[in-house]
Amino acid sequence: MENLLSSDVTFRFKMVKNECMGQNEMKTMTELADARDFRRLKEWLAQMQEADIAEFMEEVTGEKAVVVFRMLPKELATDVFAFLPAAKQQEIIDRITDAELQAVIEDLFVDDAVDMLEEFPANVVKRVLKNAKPDTREMINLFLQYPANSAGSIMTAEYLALKKDMTVEEAFAYIRLHGVDKETIYTCYVTDQRRKLEGVVTVKDLLMNPYEVRLEEIMDSHVIKSVTTEDQEQVAEKFTRYDLLSLPVVDGENRLVGIVTVDDVVDVMEQEATEDFEKMAAMVPSERPYLQTSVFLLAKNRIMWLLILMLSSMITGGILARYENAFALIPLLVTFIPMLTDTGGNAGSQSSTLIIRGMAVGEIEPGDVFRVLWKELRVGMIVGGILGLVNYVQLVLRFPGNEQICLTVVLSLFATVLLAKTVGSVLPMAARMLRLDPAIMAAPLITTIVDAFSLVIYFKIACRLLELA
Amino acid sequence: MENLLSSDVTFRFKMVKNECMGQNEMKTMTELADARDFRRLKEWLAQMQEADIAEFMEEVTGEKAVVVFRMLPKELATDVFAFLPAAKQQEIIDRITDAELQAVIEDLFVDDAVDMLEEFPANVVKRVLKNAKPDTREMINLFLQYPANSAGSIMTAEYLALKKDMTVEEAFAYIRLHGVDKETIYTCYVTDQRRKLEGVVTVKDLLMNPYEVRLEEIMDSHVIKSVTTEDQEQVAEKFTRYDLLSLPVVDGENRLVGIVTVDDVVDVMEQEATEDFEKMAAMVPSERPYLQTSVFLLAKNRIMWLLILMLSSMITGGILARYENAFALIPLLVTFIPMLTDTGGNAGSQSSTLIIRGMAVGEIEPGDVFRVLWKELRVGMIVGGILGLVNYVQLVLRFPGNEQICLTVVLSLFATVLLAKTVGSVLPMAARMLRLDPAIMAAPLITTIVDAFSLVIYFKIACRLLELA
Repeated sequence: MENLLSSDVTFRFKMVKNECMGQNEMKTMTELADARDFRRLKEWLAQMQEADIAEFMEEVTGEKAVVVFRMLPKELATDVFAFLPAAKQQEIIDRITDAELQAVIEDLFVDDAVDMLEEFPANVVKRVLKNAKPDTREMINLFLQYPANSAGSIMTAEYLALKKDMTVEEAFAYIRLHGVDKETIYTCYVTDQRRKLEGVVTVKDLLMNPYEVRLEEIMDSHVIKSVTTEDQEQVAEKFTRYDLLSLPVVDGENRLVGIVTVDDVVDVMEQEATEDFEKMAAMVPSERPYLQTSVFLLAKNRIMWLLILMLSSMITGGILARYENAFALIPLLVTFIPMLTDTGGNAGSQSSTLIIRGMAVGEIEPGDVFRVLWKELRVGMIVGGILGLVNYVQLVLRFPGNEQICLTVVLSLFATVLLAKTVGSVLPMAARMLRLDPAIMAAPLITTIVDAFSLVIYFKIACRLLELA
Repeated sequence: MENLLSSDVTFRFKMVKNECMGQNEMKTMTELADARDFRRLKEWLAQMQEADIAEFMEEVTGEKAVVVFRMLPKELATDVFAFLPAAKQQEIIDRITDAELQAVIEDLFVDDAVDMLEEFPANVVKRVLKNAKPDTREMINLFLQYPANSAGSIMTAEYLALKKDMTVEEAFAYIRLHGVDKETIYTCYVTDQRRKLEGVVTVKDLLMNPYEVRLEEIMDSHVIKSVTTEDQEQVAEKFTRYDLLSLPVVDGENRLVGIVTVDDVVDVMEQEATEDFEKMAAMVPSERPYLQTSVFLLAKNRIMWLLILMLSSMITGGILARYENAFALIPLLVTFIPMLTDTGGNAGSQSSTLIIRGMAVGEIEPGDVFRVLWKELRVGMIVGGILGLVNYVQLVLRFPGNEQICLTVVLSLFATVLLAKTVGSVLPMAARMLRLDPAIMAAPLITTIVDAFSLVIYFKIACRLLELA
């Protein structure tokens, strides 16, 4: 026991230092589970955060995870359950009784239940819904119908709704009575008899006002809200713009149907950024974590764009074929192709990345297209000028007596950079104007386009300056 | 007036629909400001959110922005001020009196004041600090010393600290008395006489417990916290992992010095994602919005990597030079170079992007390197196989009788894809192990590396199969 206590102190200390589960702690706990020393395991679990217990349960195998799950107090068990990935949730559901399952379902927030069911195979969904109470089942079925990535799909039903003729004192009494199983109690919504949203009042407002004041007098009736069909990206934008902790979601008739809380928005933001990274690297985005994605699915997400881009770069190859006699006469010309196309691609990706990201975070609007283009042209001239100069110096040193070739390369480089900056900045904005996703106009596509044009420029200049045609 | 009211209804309706300032509303308000119709302007302002007023003030010119600023009630004025970009804040500070400036400074949260001062030139900082009260000045000076992007640099000092022998009733009385100017009142921190952090108690805990209970009995003493020097990325990770609304920040001796609130973390997350996008597109990251960045700075942020990559691709060019006689004999070989290098680059960027992002969100650890490599090799074989097959079919159709050349291209393509997937997945993980930023091992660098190797493979295979050497 002494040993346990002292290791416990180290454990807590480490938890404070890195806060996430360290490898050692995980090992000790797995050993305790293997040794079936459940009494000591329970002591450890009692001190841990839900997210950390969930991580531990992910590490231990099926049967043991259920043992750990059953060891937790009921309330905590559901909270930990909500943190688990869908595959692990299913493993546990497959092993617990209908009564246990019912307790979990009734205790889960609707948004967590919906997230989970969306990942499950049909037979598991059926068993889960069979074990939910009629009200819960109806609610879950309703929420499952909202389109993916809409406000409706990320909202939850556990909010506090007050009436405007309540006093602050009555509001507090109501919160004390009904607040315990709500996802947030800090922002309360004021609705009328028909559930229409009339205002918002925070617990801070309640605390800063005398007990006898009516909510009508202190509530804010200019409520920032979303409708169920709105895209989750817009929901996230409202949270960042107005620094919200929660946002009410209404239906087409302004009736309050749910709320979105800031912790879900943080997840949405991470997910949206990941999606953009994936799209910008020419992949079909996937919501599944990399290590949990099958090789086949990973390949499937990547092959389409690779094929399209491969076939497009055949066009570039076709351009080269037209100039076969040029590089048969001066083979040196070929050696500058990688430098030209790579630099063009890089210069173009820089611009397109900045513009795509700028539009994603709302800093750049389609209306800014001429300001952006003018900026990029000037940046292109500076950058292209410097690159050209450096290149010229090293070329004349390496290939003395070939001034015309050096000039050809440098002029092509400058023109390529200017072109890349133009294409890289204009195409993402054009995509937005055509209501396409700007993220497809990223590095890979820009590179392919710029490659083709830069080679045409290169050989046109070469033919002119070197009199090849 | 009737006209105003009806346009007002439309205005509110539009605000509800897109919530952000529409172009029309902005125009009407600017017209009111131009016509110096301040009475009606004030009516409009009274209904608007702080973020929207700030956006309006950004649009109007210096003198008018000050008029609008002075029109706002004192509390609201500071809140709006905090939403303004630094350049606009400075414009206003330059035009207001010392007394007005003092009111703003004393009213701002320390984190907002520090963010602002970090952007100002020295003389403005001096005037601001001169007008702050001694306590505020000392606090701001202290906070300004924390390293950029540390927990200390994003925290604020306006938190509620309770004592563990307080009852719930006393705690509520304390919150009512001191809560009004705190950044959050929903999470309260329990400290001892020496300000050492002992526990955390939420307003929800307080509301769910009887008035006579002591905080000691209900507080959670396993507090998730950060130290002042911790990186803001780690702070953000704790928020996402533990679904926090606020996080206490302690010094080296566990004394509470500030808190970070979730709205700041949302900004940090956006900023960190933007930084990764920029680094991965071979740019030096900048915190400034694109349209507010000068052409010179944009060029400066881009030129270094462009130069490095340009000179590196010269190496690739050098490789080509060694095979001059190969493509002098069979010029057709050259036309497949763009397809090979582009596909290699794209395949490599896909892998590196997934791995870099996976590490950034904590889904992939350096210890997973062999799992990742094995996955990528299999994905590479599937993807490379399909690309090779498609390519072979179209090559034999386009160039009948050149089977050996077709075979050379297809074999090189397959080897290039495998190599790209390996390099693209291993290099970012290697960077992390060497404590470098994995984001530098992104598309541009991977492309350059893969280009060089793929050409060596291509010409080696060509020499062997076509007996060129």
